[in-house]
Amino acid sequence: MADTAASTPTLMAHAIRALAMDAVQQANSGHPGAPMGMAEMAVALWGRHLRHNPTNPQWADRDRFVLSNGHGSMLIYALLHLSGYALSIDDLKAFRQMHSKTPGHPEVGITPGVETTTGPLGQGITNAVGLALAEKMLAKEFNRDGHAIVDHHTYVFLGDGCLMEGISHEACSLAGAWKLNKLIALYDDNGISIDGQVAPWFIDNTAQRFEAYGWNVIGPIDGHDVDAVDAAIAAAKKSSDKPTLVISKTHIGKGSPNRANTAKAHGEPLGAEEIKLTREALGWSHEPFQIPADVYAAWDAKTAGAAAEKAWDERFEAYAAAHPELAAEFQRRMAGVLPTNFAQIAVDAVVAAHEKAETVASRKASQLALEAFTAALPELLGGSADLTGSNLTNTKSTPAFRIEADGSANGGRHINYGVREFGMAAIMNGIALHGGYIPYGGTFLTFSDYSRNAIRMAALMKQRVIHVFTHDSIGLGEDGPTHQSIEHVSSLRLIPGLDVWRPADTVETVVAWTMAIGNAQRPSVLALSRQNLPYAPKTAVDEIAKGAYVLAEPSEVGLKKKAQVVIMASGSEVQLAMNAQALLAKDGIAARVVSVPSTNVFDRQDAAYKQSVLPAGLPRVAVEAGVSDFWWKYGVSAVVGIDTYGESAPAPVLFKHFGFTAENVVDTVKVAVGAARLKR
Amino acid sequence: MADTAASTPTLMAHAIRALAMDAVQQANSGHPGAPMGMAEMAVALWGRHLRHNPTNPQWADRDRFVLSNGHGSMLIYALLHLSGYALSIDDLKAFRQMHSKTPGHPEVGITPGVETTTGPLGQGITNAVGLALAEKMLAKEFNRDGHAIVDHHTYVFLGDGCLMEGISHEACSLAGAWKLNKLIALYDDNGISIDGQVAPWFIDNTAQRFEAYGWNVIGPIDGHDVDAVDAAIAAAKKSSDKPTLVISKTHIGKGSPNRANTAKAHGEPLGAEEIKLTREALGWSHEPFQIPADVYAAWDAKTAGAAAEKAWDERFEAYAAAHPELAAEFQRRMAGVLPTNFAQIAVDAVVAAHEKAETVASRKASQLALEAFTAALPELLGGSADLTGSNLTNTKSTPAFRIEADGSANGGRHINYGVREFGMAAIMNGIALHGGYIPYGGTFLTFSDYSRNAIRMAALMKQRVIHVFTHDSIGLGEDGPTHQSIEHVSSLRLIPGLDVWRPADTVETVVAWTMAIGNAQRPSVLALSRQNLPYAPKTAVDEIAKGAYVLAEPSEVGLKKKAQVVIMASGSEVQLAMNAQALLAKDGIAARVVSVPSTNVFDRQDAAYKQSVLPAGLPRVAVEAGVSDFWWKYGVSAVVGIDTYGESAPAPVLFKHFGFTAENVVDTVKVAVGAARLKR
Repeated sequence: MADTAASTPTLMAHAIRALAMDAVQQANSGHPGAPMGMAEMAVALWGRHLRHNPTNPQWADRDRFVLSNGHGSMLIYALLHLSGYALSIDDLKAFRQMHSKTPGHPEVGITPGVETTTGPLGQGITNAVGLALAEKMLAKEFNRDGHAIVDHHTYVFLGDGCLMEGISHEACSLAGAWKLNKLIALYDDNGISIDGQVAPWFIDNTAQRFEAYGWNVIGPIDGHDVDAVDAAIAAAKKSSDKPTLVISKTHIGKGSPNRANTAKAHGEPLGAEEIKLTREALGWSHEPFQIPADVYAAWDAKTAGAAAEKAWDERFEAYAAAHPELAAEFQRRMAGVLPTNFAQIAVDAVVAAHEKAETVASRKASQLALEAFTAALPELLGGSADLTGSNLTNTKSTPAFRIEADGSANGGRHINYGVREFGMAAIMNGIALHGGYIPYGGTFLTFSDYSRNAIRMAALMKQRVIHVFTHDSIGLGEDGPTHQSIEHVSSLRLIPGLDVWRPADTVETVVAWTMAIGNAQRPSVLALSRQNLPYAPKTAVDEIAKGAYVLAEPSEVGLKKKAQVVIMASGSEVQLAMNAQALLAKDGIAARVVSVPSTNVFDRQDAAYKQSVLPAGLPRVAVEAGVSDFWWKYGVSAVVGIDTYGESAPAPVLFKHFGFTAENVVDTVKVAVGAARLKR
Repeated sequence: MADTAASTPTLMAHAIRALAMDAVQQANSGHPGAPMGMAEMAVALWGRHLRHNPTNPQWADRDRFVLSNGHGSMLIYALLHLSGYALSIDDLKAFRQMHSKTPGHPEVGITPGVETTTGPLGQGITNAVGLALAEKMLAKEFNRDGHAIVDHHTYVFLGDGCLMEGISHEACSLAGAWKLNKLIALYDDNGISIDGQVAPWFIDNTAQRFEAYGWNVIGPIDGHDVDAVDAAIAAAKKSSDKPTLVISKTHIGKGSPNRANTAKAHGEPLGAEEIKLTREALGWSHEPFQIPADVYAAWDAKTAGAAAEKAWDERFEAYAAAHPELAAEFQRRMAGVLPTNFAQIAVDAVVAAHEKAETVASRKASQLALEAFTAALPELLGGSADLTGSNLTNTKSTPAFRIEADGSANGGRHINYGVREFGMAAIMNGIALHGGYIPYGGTFLTFSDYSRNAIRMAALMKQRVIHVFTHDSIGLGEDGPTHQSIEHVSSLRLIPGLDVWRPADTVETVVAWTMAIGNAQRPSVLALSRQNLPYAPKTAVDEIAKGAYVLAEPSEVGLKKKAQVVIMASGSEVQLAMNAQALLAKDGIAARVVSVPSTNVFDRQDAAYKQSVLPAGLPRVAVEAGVSDFWWKYGVSAVVGIDTYGESAPAPVLFKHFGFTAENVVDTVKVAVGAARLKR
């Protein structure tokens, strides 16, 4: 195992090994094996190919690097530190400590140079597909003859775990179909996963598998031979129409005499004694966290990076001179700034919806809103997981995205993701992380289960990704309980940092879209109906954006007294609340209807607004065709909900069967009002 | 397109086509294209190979059939009806109507002969992998020389959608590694998905992909040539060490002059006019829902099925004579009945845990419980998604499952599923559906997101599948927010029909396992800590099984007065509640501590028990290291929870940072008590 040759690439690799084992030891927690095994791969890529500028991690045309096997975080931290990013040796010493820049898994936004948050396996390679897709689409949109301002690669390191995960199938199949030739993935093929040598549970012929996807496969090569990896990357960069997988045979924990090639190297410190032995075996005599100046110098990418960015700056200046509007638009798009007329477009769309007062399904209302927004915002990049005609995610402004015969994008703006919900969600995360687009994508709400962790990751990463989940609740009818979301809206509401919208009509749907597009730091979910929903007459259009608002006071149904009860409802059940309000008025009971398109947004309002909508002391009843548990947080006396699975039958039959009738709401409200009287 | 040859196989296929298009038309909803396209595949399989007995759908050694593309439900309904199951023509006429035996997607338990509920794509083929695995393992366990009482095939129909889904990768990769030679999948390769011809988004060379998994691939063959499909199945049955994929080229909606080969055939009725044209093209002149007697006769499988089962019965009698104990055990296992000593084992395990009063992580407590249960219950079949040493799902009684050189199972009882959470969950569903085993499997709680829809499917199907989710909440420490479940416990609680347990110590963990194993009609989740949890001294062991119980009255901390406040807590936060109780006592505040290992179970208790645990009028405070929203349903005044993502740091640092300290609980309780006084 010992490799004491003092060549510069070897020393560069050993610096990574030393930092990885020392930082993990210091933290008494972490994963030394992967960084130690991938050290030469990193030398080849970061030392010889990666085009980046450590002093400006935000350079638009930098190559993107994704560590899909994110548990090997000390690899990327070592690389960022060594190559000159603002990540000091003290930051490395604080590995896995509170509020450090070096958390247990790489987190975008915490560490300069980290492009995406990884750890949940398989999602990094999928984010990378999104990054590479965004590059290809932006190149089509912005490059002009003689001006290739978008022209970079996306590199990924990934391991056995990523390749076992199902999402890798979805992502890599699409990467092949999309001919993402600038995507270069290096597979850390060490034959070990946590449970041991993978042979009993992982016998895939991965080369054959990726060839089946239309990839260019190189190797197996010796992943500890820097020149071999270098040559493989050079060859991969020449691929004109296929993504490349470089299969690099490596040894996990390489350098450790007793732990290399074992699962023991994976997820725990080597221990002081084994670290000592490893230092000896490597011929690395430096103290922990001490890197010789010549090794720093060999890794330093600041000068080359600054020169590369400067060269691009000059090219961009020439581009700007030739195509000033395009250049300005490119800068706007990459900055994630909306067009100045966005607010007006949103207002116009609200007014139009209000004036038309149409009765349509909220999925159709979403398409109507999207017609306006996609016409005005070229950054809106739609898609669907093979349910375009059901999700209604396409518009006149979003022709289908296709790959031309030469491998380039066709300029289309609606992506057929195929039946790949999780892949779609994590690819959208990658697109958003790249910059230049605001991705949105559709599937049935019930299949948000499939993509759930990627939705969570968008929220954790604070990325503007919009999920269009249609066929909400039992309203989809005959497809039955497998397809009827019951717990989904509420369970999505529980994801921190995510805004869930369940609009009741065309106007609320426009507002939901406006908020989702306008919120640069947050993903959003729109839960939309299959069935028609009546327009709810309203005056307080401005307050929809506060997540909940008074839709109708008792005066709307002819009562002169103040509300004595509040009916809260969302989405398709707002009409029930309105009908119940009218029926209650006949019995002299004054009910206020509060429409709640987004609990997440409402919860962020100030106490005064909340009190104005839900006055203390008034009994409250919630109505929603979903699990009831969630609503108790609003101090309700009762919930008209559904806490079982649905059934297969026409929607009107189902709503009646499960008690979603105005009469049932009336009865429930009467009980609540009576109980409130008793309390006094 | 017209195929008017009147051969019997042709007429058999046309009967399926007619029933499918007529039933969808009558329901005005459904998917005619798939059944019409797979009609000849069905004739070949069901007419010539499937070994089943329509008069006893529960025959233990029947072949299993899974329609993975479950939207084509009219195919299986037609087949069940035609071959003689208790599914009448009136049942077919009630397709997709309330409480009919023919819901929109096939549902196990509703329709005789339906083996699993399908519709969420990719899960059917994965269930089938579980069915075939169970067959292979049971064969190893029960067959003896000259006595092959477990010897059947698992057949699957699947479409493009299933093959695009990531879970198909996880499942089929494992099927290859496990050499499931009795698994035969027929791919309905029609080149169409909902968004149209799949070429722009699905260019996989599926044959090559499956060869890479170690499958036997046959075809492409003409899927409308009954003899060709018949021959392919016959060849597949001869495979001794590989599962088989038969690639059958078909035309979606075959027979429909204007809709065949189009996405329009997929998900809507053909319409009266097109049905008329289709009848003409097929030469099928019979009225809707009328099948000629000779076609019924050709399909009838009752006689052959009864004979097949009778032959097996005779073999089983010989087996029972030679191996009476094994035969009785086989019958017990297939019936899903627990050993008679189960209750005693559970009691002994509780007593042992109580007497030892150990401070261990609840994941370790789970392993301790499993030691007892796996020793006594051979049906317990463990596993982990590559986290065995972390989930602690293995025991002395569960050696690793491996495949012998001859392709047979080795008798091991702990499955290394690899890094395939969703696959694991849906395979476990298949194992449970087969009968003979109670599957349990582990991963980190945060990755329950990956498997979520399969957990839901187990609940919808009422299957006894147990999920061991360890590394609960921020207690896992340094791995950081990607790995820290925050919303997961509560969001799992929202899934109807699922029991979620979050035990606080060794005794609660034993009870959770006892309940999970004992509940034949329900899947369970155990959310377990990475970190040590102290034993909570208790007297009311019996009441743990009620989901929530009074763990400590004020008298336990030396106060003579009655409780004036209730602190509810679960799992790792029960110790905080206990510490807070003691601190509050010093200030004269009498708090009752209620431990809540399972809200789902508690919610099913009667009103009197609930009132005894949570007396009306006493203020309540909940403490749980998860999202707070859920707890308001218990009428709490405050929740000590966490509504943001966690951080990467040592666990004790995190608990303090996020306010999980006894002092913070004390402060919160004091406010609640004060507020309650003000109210009076």
